[in-house]
Amino acid sequence: MIIGAEPVLGTGEEIRSVDPRTGAGIDPGFREASAEDVERACALAGRAFPEFRALDAGRRAEFLDRVAELLDERRDALVQRAHSETALPRPRLNGEVARTSGQLRLFAAELRTGAWQGARIDPARPGREPLPRADIRQRKIALGPVAVFGASNFPLAFSTAGGDTASALAAGCPVIVKAHQAHLGTAELVARAIAEAAADTAMPEGVFSQVVGSGRVVGARLVQDPRIRAVGFTGSRAGGLAIAAMAASRPVPIPVYAEMSSINPVLLLPAALEKRGAELGAAFAGSLTLGAGQFCTNPGLVLAIEGPGLDAFVKAAADAVAADGGATMLTTDIARHHAVAGDALAAREGVREVARGSRPDSAACSRARLLTADGVRFAADPELQTEAFGATSLIVRCADASELAGAVEALEGQLTATVHADATDHHLAAKLMPLLEERAGRVLFNGWPTGVEVGHAMVHGGPFPATTDPRSTSVGTLAIERFLRPVAYQDVPSALLPAELRDDNPFGVWRRVDGDPGRDAPSAGATR
Amino acid sequence: MIIGAEPVLGTGEEIRSVDPRTGAGIDPGFREASAEDVERACALAGRAFPEFRALDAGRRAEFLDRVAELLDERRDALVQRAHSETALPRPRLNGEVARTSGQLRLFAAELRTGAWQGARIDPARPGREPLPRADIRQRKIALGPVAVFGASNFPLAFSTAGGDTASALAAGCPVIVKAHQAHLGTAELVARAIAEAAADTAMPEGVFSQVVGSGRVVGARLVQDPRIRAVGFTGSRAGGLAIAAMAASRPVPIPVYAEMSSINPVLLLPAALEKRGAELGAAFAGSLTLGAGQFCTNPGLVLAIEGPGLDAFVKAAADAVAADGGATMLTTDIARHHAVAGDALAAREGVREVARGSRPDSAACSRARLLTADGVRFAADPELQTEAFGATSLIVRCADASELAGAVEALEGQLTATVHADATDHHLAAKLMPLLEERAGRVLFNGWPTGVEVGHAMVHGGPFPATTDPRSTSVGTLAIERFLRPVAYQDVPSALLPAELRDDNPFGVWRRVDGDPGRDAPSAGATR
Repeated sequence: MIIGAEPVLGTGEEIRSVDPRTGAGIDPGFREASAEDVERACALAGRAFPEFRALDAGRRAEFLDRVAELLDERRDALVQRAHSETALPRPRLNGEVARTSGQLRLFAAELRTGAWQGARIDPARPGREPLPRADIRQRKIALGPVAVFGASNFPLAFSTAGGDTASALAAGCPVIVKAHQAHLGTAELVARAIAEAAADTAMPEGVFSQVVGSGRVVGARLVQDPRIRAVGFTGSRAGGLAIAAMAASRPVPIPVYAEMSSINPVLLLPAALEKRGAELGAAFAGSLTLGAGQFCTNPGLVLAIEGPGLDAFVKAAADAVAADGGATMLTTDIARHHAVAGDALAAREGVREVARGSRPDSAACSRARLLTADGVRFAADPELQTEAFGATSLIVRCADASELAGAVEALEGQLTATVHADATDHHLAAKLMPLLEERAGRVLFNGWPTGVEVGHAMVHGGPFPATTDPRSTSVGTLAIERFLRPVAYQDVPSALLPAELRDDNPFGVWRRVDGDPGRDAPSAGATR
Repeated sequence: MIIGAEPVLGTGEEIRSVDPRTGAGIDPGFREASAEDVERACALAGRAFPEFRALDAGRRAEFLDRVAELLDERRDALVQRAHSETALPRPRLNGEVARTSGQLRLFAAELRTGAWQGARIDPARPGREPLPRADIRQRKIALGPVAVFGASNFPLAFSTAGGDTASALAAGCPVIVKAHQAHLGTAELVARAIAEAAADTAMPEGVFSQVVGSGRVVGARLVQDPRIRAVGFTGSRAGGLAIAAMAASRPVPIPVYAEMSSINPVLLLPAALEKRGAELGAAFAGSLTLGAGQFCTNPGLVLAIEGPGLDAFVKAAADAVAADGGATMLTTDIARHHAVAGDALAAREGVREVARGSRPDSAACSRARLLTADGVRFAADPELQTEAFGATSLIVRCADASELAGAVEALEGQLTATVHADATDHHLAAKLMPLLEERAGRVLFNGWPTGVEVGHAMVHGGPFPATTDPRSTSVGTLAIERFLRPVAYQDVPSALLPAELRDDNPFGVWRRVDGDPGRDAPSAGATR
C-alpha cells in the first residue's frame, strides 16, 4: 500500500492477485489494510486538502503531467504485470497506458484553461433602484478527499490513476484508492508512480494514498470516514448500490458516482440492414467479442425489424460467434458470472440461443453466446435487460417500427445507444432520437459503442442503473465537475478574492460577466 | 388544485390556511389530493415531458415571461391574499412579487443565451494516429418531471412559481408543486397564473400541476412516483432529510435538492469592531429581527474576539433586541418551535441570555432573543449550532484569533458566512477565508446575509446540512443545472443533431470547441 509518502505493508490478511489463465496466485502477497491504516490515509488526506485545493491550478497540472510521464516511462513494466494479472493482450495494455497518461495530460491542460472553475461575475450596481446591487462573483472549489474504487476491466485507465483519480486530483481533491484485488501488482506500480510524482512536484503529503483490502471491510471504512467527501466507483451494480446506500446514510451524506451496468442497445434500421446486413453482423460480432466482451460499453443488445436484412445480420453474427474460440476473462468470478447470467437469459421464456462459441483451456475461460427474442417479449420481461458482462448478446427481432419503439421505451438507463442508419432511415431515426437520449448518456451512429474517446465532449454516464448519478460523466473533462461545488463571493475585497475572480483576471480564464458568455472570453487558444 | 389545464377540487380531507394573527381559519377550504389526483398529475407531467423539453428554448422563455407578466398584473390580489395568510408586511410582499417575476424573466433570458446547454464540440480527426477520432458533441437535456415543495417564509419567491419551479421549467422539466399548507390561497392564485400562461403560450398540458395535501401522504406519493425525476425542497431539516431518504430508496433513485438549515455565522474582526462596534450591533439587530428572523440567511450566530469593540457591539445589539416589540410569525407552529428551540439553546451549559424583546398580541407571536457563550464552549457543543428559525442569535465571545478559528472549524455547513473587516483585518481575514469557503455557499463582506440577490453569480446553497447537495444553488441562473444532464452525440448526422450542436450554430450559442472556451464565443451581448 501507499499511505501518504510511504509504502506500507498492511497488517491484515494476506491476499494476492490470481493468474486468470492458470488460477494460480501471483507473488508477492499483499496484506489488507487495518482500521488504523485507513484512518491514517484519511487523516493525511484531510490534512492535505486545504493546501492542495488552494494550489495554483498550474501546480496541480504539473503533478498530473509528471504522473503521466512516469507511467509512460514505465510502460513495459506496467504492461508486463497487468498482462499476468488480467490476461488482457499486451497491445491493448500498451494502448491503455497511453490512454491513462493522455487522460492525465488532458486534465492538466483543462486546469490550465481555468474554464473548469465556471467563473461568473455580476458587478456591483450601486445606483440600482429600489436597492443597489452588491458585487457578486462565483467560482467552483474542490469538495474534499475522494475515495476511488477502480474497475477490474481497465487495470490502468479506470483504476489507480484512471479517470476518477485524474479528475478528482485535478479538482483539488486528495484521493484514496482502494486497489482492485484482481490487479494488486499493477495497482502498486501505478500508486508508486503517483507517490513519486507527488514528491517530485512538492505536493502535500496525503494527496494520494492507496489501500488494499475487501470492499466490504476496507471499502466500507473509507466510504464512512467523515473526511471523505465523494466516491468514484466503477464496477458491479450490487457493489455500486451498496456504496451509494452507505454514503446516503452517513451523518453527512456524500455524492457517489458509481458507473455500474449497461447493455448498450444497438439499433439496426431497415435501410442500413438491407444494404449491409451481413457486414454489420460480422462487425457486431467483432465488437461483442473484443476483449472477451469485458467493456461497460459492450453491445449486449441488438434491436431490429424483421426482414431479409436482419436474417443476413443474424446469420453473419451467428457464424462469427460460432467460430469464436472464446477468451480468458479477467477473473474466475467474472467468468462464472458470465456463464450463469447467460444461462439465466437463455432460460427465459421466448429466448432462443442461435450461436455459441467455444472455450479456451484456461481457468477463467468464457464462450461467446448469441440469443434472440421478439420485441413484444423483450418489452414485457425486464429480466432480459440483465447485464451478463462478457461476450453475450441478445438480438431482439421486432415485427415493425412501432414494436421497435416499444422495445426502446422499455429500456432501462444506458451508457450508450447506437444506431445504424442510412440516409433513408433518418425519418425513423428522428423519431427514435428523443427516446434514446432520454435513456442513454451517449448516442452514436454507424459505429460501435466500445472505445470511449477521452475528450471534452464525451459523456460516459447515463440514467440509472447505468450510473447512480446521470448528471455527470466519468470520462472526459466534464468529469472534473463531479468533485466541485460553487461558492459565491459578495463584496469581497479584491485582495482577498481568488485570482480567477479579480478584475485583472491574471490567468485570463474564461468568465461569464453579467451572464454574458462572450464578454470576457479569452482569445482563441489562450491558456494560462 | 390545478391538475394539467384544469382546476380540480380534491376529494380528501378539508384543510385551510390560518391567519397567524388571530389563529382563525381562512376561507375557502381546500381538499387534499387523492392518490388518483397525484397519479393524474404525474401521468400528465410524464406525457408532457418529451414535447416540453424538445421545444425551442425561446418558446419556454415566452412561457416564463408570460407567467411573470400575469403575476405582475395580479400583484395587488397576490399581496392581499399572502398578507392575510402569512402576516408578512405588504411592502415586503410587493417586493416579493417583483422578485418572483424578475426571477422568471432572468431564466427566460438565460434560455435565450443558450449558454445553459453547456455545448461542447470535439470535431472529428479522421487522420489521427493510431486511431481516427470520431465527431463528438455534447449538450445538456432535461431530467424529467420535477416535484417542488415550496417554503413557508417566501410565499411567492420560494413557492409555487419560485426559483425551483422557474429553473425546472426553464430546463424543460414539467413541474408538480405541492402547495404549502400555510399559504394555500396564495398558492392557488399563482398556480392559476401559471396554468393560464401555459395555455396562452400553447404549452403541452401537464407542464404544470399543483396538488394540495400533507407532506407525509401527498408529498410522499409525489416523491415516490416513477415519473418524477428530481425534487426541489425548501424547508426544515427533518422534512428535507425524510424526502432525501425516500428518494434514495426508490427503485430508481433521484436527486433531491433540499435547502434546509443554516445559522449563517457573522464574523466581526477586531479593527472593524473597534471602529464601529456599536454601529454594527444596531445593524446586526436590524438584520436579526427583519421579517421576524424568518430567513434561511438570518444571522443566528456571531463570532468575535473579546475587547471593548465587542462590548460595544453586544450592548448596542442587546439594547435594540430589548426594545424590539416582537413580531407575528408565519404560523403558530413556527412560533412555537422558535420559542422552544431558543429555550433549549439558552439552557445549554455556558449560555447566557443577554436580551429578550417583547411579544405582540397575536396567535403566532415571537420575541427576539440574544444569547452569548464563549468560543471554547461553542466549539465543544454541537447543539449550539441548532437553528431556531426566527429572531434568536448566539454571540460567541472568543479569547483570541485562534479560538475564533477553532469556532469556525467546528461549524457545520452553511448557506452564508459573513465577515466584517477593515483593511487592517485583512491578514486575519485571509486566514479565515479558506475555512469559510469550505463551510459555506456564499462568503460576504461588510454586509448582512439576508437579502439574496438573484443573478448569475449567486450561490444559495452550501455543504450539508445547509442543503442535501452542495454542488448546486437554488437561486440564480446556475440553478438550472440541477435539472439537466449531459448527453454526447457521436457521429450523429447533422440533420439529426439538436440545432445548438450543428456546425452552423443557428442560435449562436456559446460552445467549447475542442475544449477552447474562446473559439466559438458569441460576440458580447448576442442572444438568440
